[in-house]
Amino acid sequence: MSERDAVLFANEAFYRAFADRDARAVDALWSTNVPVTCIHPGWGPIQDREEIVASWAAILADENAPDIQCNDAEAQIYGDVAVVICFETFDDGRLIATNIFCREGPVWKMIHHQAGPTSAAPDPHADETGGMLH
Amino acid sequence: MSERDAVLFANEAFYRAFADRDARAVDALWSTNVPVTCIHPGWGPIQDREEIVASWAAILADENAPDIQCNDAEAQIYGDVAVVICFETFDDGRLIATNIFCREGPVWKMIHHQAGPTSAAPDPHADETGGMLH
Repeated sequence: MSERDAVLFANEAFYRAFADRDARAVDALWSTNVPVTCIHPGWGPIQDREEIVASWAAILADENAPDIQCNDAEAQIYGDVAVVICFETFDDGRLIATNIFCREGPVWKMIHHQAGPTSAAPDPHADETGGMLH
Repeated sequence: MSERDAVLFANEAFYRAFADRDARAVDALWSTNVPVTCIHPGWGPIQDREEIVASWAAILADENAPDIQCNDAEAQIYGDVAVVICFETFDDGRLIATNIFCREGPVWKMIHHQAGPTSAAPDPHADETGGMLH
């Protein structure tokens, strides 16, 4: 698996955990070794790991939380840090996200997430995972 | 100057260039060595450096573009990559931004920007630059 594929795999795992409403899996994807930060759409910054994990658990426990699909994920790797941009598509619209990962041994752990509204749309010719393991 | 101060200095230089409507200064702040990406509020991703610089030039040339102040900037450093979170405050409201920088010799160059709406507010007890050179 290439470095880029490994990063996109970690990004996909995040949205898989979201689809599965698996707060424990989300927790496991966030780094425990370095400072982490998170900006949910419309929220302020969360800069405490426990608060981040709790916020995701609350979102996933909300019956009204939409099912989200990740589209058009693109990864850029800068040494031991990777930046992924992707769309988060759901029934009523979509968001655009920046997800940052840090290399920890063989895996990439999430260290930052920001999602916000976008008027753009994913490429209809891309596959569902945004060209994930090409 | 500490590493963190150098990162916050680069972040502040970005908002200074914005305040000065100095598209050339914005251009100079973005890395020319590695891939760069930008997500303006509500836009799709821009993944081409020339398009990013042109988008900033267009924003700065717009007489209706608001004056923006950076507040509560917080930097996390991961080796040669730094992630800054800050508020972008203007007359009618505010945005929250993720700015990512990459170390290039003695300076930090911008490699990613995403800004989106937030219902949170900067800390009224912080100074105007978000505690920049403490």
